[in-house]
Amino acid sequence: MILTVTLNAALDVTYQVPALRLGATHRPTAVDMRAGGKGVNVARVLHALGHETMVTGLVGGETGAAIRLDVRAAGLRETLFDMAGPSRRTVTIVSDGAATAVNEPGPDVSISDWADFVGGYHALAARASVVVLSGSLPGGLPADAYAQLVRATPTPVILDASGEPFAAGLAARPAVVKPNADELAEATGLTDPVAAARVLLDRGAGAVVASLGADGLIAVTGNGSWRVRVPESLRGNPTGAGDACVAALAAGHTRDWPARLADAVAVSAAAVPCPLAGDIDHDTYTRLRPAITVEELDAHANR
Amino acid sequence: MILTVTLNAALDVTYQVPALRLGATHRPTAVDMRAGGKGVNVARVLHALGHETMVTGLVGGETGAAIRLDVRAAGLRETLFDMAGPSRRTVTIVSDGAATAVNEPGPDVSISDWADFVGGYHALAARASVVVLSGSLPGGLPADAYAQLVRATPTPVILDASGEPFAAGLAARPAVVKPNADELAEATGLTDPVAAARVLLDRGAGAVVASLGADGLIAVTGNGSWRVRVPESLRGNPTGAGDACVAALAAGHTRDWPARLADAVAVSAAAVPCPLAGDIDHDTYTRLRPAITVEELDAHANR
Repeated sequence: MILTVTLNAALDVTYQVPALRLGATHRPTAVDMRAGGKGVNVARVLHALGHETMVTGLVGGETGAAIRLDVRAAGLRETLFDMAGPSRRTVTIVSDGAATAVNEPGPDVSISDWADFVGGYHALAARASVVVLSGSLPGGLPADAYAQLVRATPTPVILDASGEPFAAGLAARPAVVKPNADELAEATGLTDPVAAARVLLDRGAGAVVASLGADGLIAVTGNGSWRVRVPESLRGNPTGAGDACVAALAAGHTRDWPARLADAVAVSAAAVPCPLAGDIDHDTYTRLRPAITVEELDAHANR
Repeated sequence: MILTVTLNAALDVTYQVPALRLGATHRPTAVDMRAGGKGVNVARVLHALGHETMVTGLVGGETGAAIRLDVRAAGLRETLFDMAGPSRRTVTIVSDGAATAVNEPGPDVSISDWADFVGGYHALAARASVVVLSGSLPGGLPADAYAQLVRATPTPVILDASGEPFAAGLAARPAVVKPNADELAEATGLTDPVAAARVLLDRGAGAVVASLGADGLIAVTGNGSWRVRVPESLRGNPTGAGDACVAALAAGHTRDWPARLADAVAVSAAAVPCPLAGDIDHDTYTRLRPAITVEELDAHANR
């Protein structure tokens, strides 16, 4: 079972608006609501790929009840823990191919709600083959919340986070971290992804897989470094590609790096044609997977 | 008691965002929620002016429960009726002084929910001194829903609506209608407000009070026509000014037209400094009220 952790789960509301104009009032042509947060999206992709998953995290209030219902409606197993505050919403207005989003920060989590979660997490993590920690932290949690969870996990952890929680989490030695180009630059101050990834490896990550959008990904690990490219440029919504990449890395955790990375790029690309994060297009995956190229980086780039 | 009817009540969510950009993701600096819909806003202003009010309309689901709670929290009496579908939300993103809104259409109301409402409405309207019908109709209701309510009301009705429901409502002879400049032009095809108002009088309105934003208002009635001007230009949020105008027209329904219209302009102007529809600034009202000018339009303009 692959356990995905979403500490700041959200009810994602998407409005389709024909021509969004700042300062104007609009009537949406469609309103969609679904459970979100990066960990929930990762679980959706894993489920679509046929893997057994478990969704955990914190939910509260009416929004939390709606999140729990929608997770179940998607066919995902969940052990979500209750918190006192109401779960957040995110609002995305999709118009003319652009997505304008306002993401509520979420409630502050109390110490006792966090302690209850950590207690329950131990039992879940002990049953997992791999654990995915992803997304922002809600207010009230210590910046080392992810670090605490990594240390409490007996199985490999994939960490997809940013800012202080990411920096603190690195030191707890997660098996894989999955920054994007911006997060890599923010964490290291370096613009060269390979050099930046090496810095994160030095700081404690077992492997660094950096998703670079249309440029595919680079991976720097203790056993080699690779660049993996997408064979064609794709049009669509890149929002869910990072979560799809993390799902493939989790699903392939027992495979060799080149196969695992090629799959990660194919699954990421399969998210792009889908309007909602967490969905993948199987035809795109099947078409692209054989054409993915994995290039080992030279000895200088390796460790 | 002044009865305000809000058939498409909403939970109004307002996000403050420092610099809204199309296609970008934002974290709001503040999130506010309150019960809305034009009738609720009218009741808030009436309450602030010291009048006894009753809020009625249709609410459903968790959003409906939140609307009911917030109406009560505002100190307003309510007899809101339950409907099967969930009440809608409106989302407004305020950034750099501009309000960008997405207003959900609301659920379709079933025939039986509408029949229950109409039954309850009769008893409420019989106890009211004046009734305010305002705002859009939810789906599922006939276009003559307002016309049905006007005919069922033994006391004067003020109707503030647009489109088909407004056109149908006019024929049922409401005491006052309160279009804005756009609604006046839409209903008549005429750009001159006085000429357009005369057309609406011919179609059945007892009086037409047209709110013209910074230009104040014009009124065309069976007893004379007037133009009322604001003595200074105001900066702020004009969203709630129309509802404040309606509230003042309802509150002053026993007064002579010049006094009633001057009050309507002063109360409208007092809404402009307030960021949220339904609020008024008493100091602005007190300062402007003595300076409002009411000009009787010439015999040609009168009827």
